Amino acid sequence: MDILVTVPLKEHIREDLAQTFPTVTFHYEEAEHEWLEKSEVLVTYGNDVTESVVDRAKNLKWLMVASAGVDNFPLEKIAERKWLVTNAKGIHKIPMAESMLAHILALSKGFPQIYDNERQKVWDRRVPQIEISGQKALILGPGTIGSEVGRLLQAFGVHTIGYNRSGKPSLNMDEMIQPDQLMDTLPKVDSVISILPSTPETRYLWQLEHFEAMKESAIFLNFGRGDFVKEEVVLEALHKKLVRHVVLDVFEKEPLREDSELWTMTNCTVSPHISSLSNQYIPRSIDIFKENLKRYLDEEKEYVNEVDILRGY
Amino acid sequence: MDILVTVPLKEHIREDLAQTFPTVTFHYEEAEHEWLEKSEVLVTYGNDVTESVVDRAKNLKWLMVASAGVDNFPLEKIAERKWLVTNAKGIHKIPMAESMLAHILALSKGFPQIYDNERQKVWDRRVPQIEISGQKALILGPGTIGSEVGRLLQAFGVHTIGYNRSGKPSLNMDEMIQPDQLMDTLPKVDSVISILPSTPETRYLWQLEHFEAMKESAIFLNFGRGDFVKEEVVLEALHKKLVRHVVLDVFEKEPLREDSELWTMTNCTVSPHISSLSNQYIPRSIDIFKENLKRYLDEEKEYVNEVDILRGY
Repeated sequence: MDILVTVPLKEHIREDLAQTFPTVTFHYEEAEHEWLEKSEVLVTYGNDVTESVVDRAKNLKWLMVASAGVDNFPLEKIAERKWLVTNAKGIHKIPMAESMLAHILALSKGFPQIYDNERQKVWDRRVPQIEISGQKALILGPGTIGSEVGRLLQAFGVHTIGYNRSGKPSLNMDEMIQPDQLMDTLPKVDSVISILPSTPETRYLWQLEHFEAMKESAIFLNFGRGDFVKEEVVLEALHKKLVRHVVLDVFEKEPLREDSELWTMTNCTVSPHISSLSNQYIPRSIDIFKENLKRYLDEEKEYVNEVDILRGY
Repeated sequence: MDILVTVPLKEHIREDLAQTFPTVTFHYEEAEHEWLEKSEVLVTYGNDVTESVVDRAKNLKWLMVASAGVDNFPLEKIAERKWLVTNAKGIHKIPMAESMLAHILALSKGFPQIYDNERQKVWDRRVPQIEISGQKALILGPGTIGSEVGRLLQAFGVHTIGYNRSGKPSLNMDEMIQPDQLMDTLPKVDSVISILPSTPETRYLWQLEHFEAMKESAIFLNFGRGDFVKEEVVLEALHKKLVRHVVLDVFEKEPLREDSELWTMTNCTVSPHISSLSNQYIPRSIDIFKENLKRYLDEEKEYVNEVDILRGY
């Protein structure tokens, strides 16, 4: 069996794969390579899965995406082919949760100001030091990643409120709310953290009225998808100082264009879609791939992280 | 009974004290005020407790220090007077632990670089993103504050190693080491966090050889006392890049003088002795004071946070 791998892998990982799966031939090439047409499996970060790649992959049966999102894919075309699609969901939860806590804590302790003061050799002990202990956080999309954020926030003594459509309990949430409770909850929380995927329901869900309902001292983090809120809405909230700070790890268009005002707003942190990255990323996603490849070769029917391509997650 | 309070307190706290203790007269003045000579209790942050203040406080019986350190005091002079001395130890643990985690996480996620890139409108996803999950941390002085740091680090999946003279178990430490195991432990850890108090044993304990024994990828945080390590030793370690980053919240002389090279080293964060500050600081230390004042008026013998002034903590 032939497998095309477009993810760059270190030599020791390639050797491990070759030894673990002696009946498989791994081809380490780009998606344009002729092996695309002959391979049964494609291992990719996802950015190279274009319509033409889907058309040319005539023998493909399994698309392994070594990241979590599939929303830039030609979804319907892939769905027609009835490929098995799996992703690396879950490997993001640790780096993303660490990254979100890092931002929440850094802003509570005034790091942008402290770093600036250091550059100017200013010793200023009046930089506000806010405790997150005793605060309330609203987590929009308390799935795998959101629950990990919730677990860490709870360790810091933060009260966690999860938001989903059903209102059914999620791990590490002190309470749950449904969409009709959102506006009443916003004035009570010190941070709003979105990890919602991009779906028709979440697209541009977040409006100016939501920022207006939040405390002026609260912070807003979008670590889900860039189309959760329009850039112009964020900018209006920042100009009006409706919230204390906004952290964006995702944007409507990436990379963020150079003339965006977001770069220069001091109450906004531009994180270049980096929170899911980790020095442990490739080893962990390859572990998931190896487990699934064993099951695939054994012709099992259940896979780790099988994705319903049309639902988008 | 008269009490001189040199800590600035908001009106609602003053009213609460007056109502709770109707037999007490609270004087809100500076330490130089004549009420110093008549007062039985002095409530102070500690910075105004000079030799002359001790000499003039002829009727004083109880010194309530609304902070944790007493090491800049005229200790022997105070000891001679046999005053009851209490402090606000314990109220620091939450803000300090949050602050230390904030620094550890911010450095792991490259925030100094990310903030710089934002200023220059640079979208760079190659800023290294390090996971702290799975790392090892060495906590020097795992007392009240160190154990709280340990608890939070463990929540992030960090293996915690506590260091004290006896090697006896401390809360939230996965293992304990004694002084003779220090040099063998340093090469194994990803962070060294000192919260040691200033005592004859800890004064300039940390030498260049300790930095040399650490991993080049590790970080060093001093949140204990400034005389734990000489500035020139830190600077040599920074110039030689013996460790990845140093965070200092305490200094040999504070404020840090403007011509110190520490300000300009990009692998050093100067935190202006701010980590113990908190928007919850005064309410919490007043709670301790109120509890002790009740006991004092009832002529009890046990107090919260009684300090052995000559031991220094």
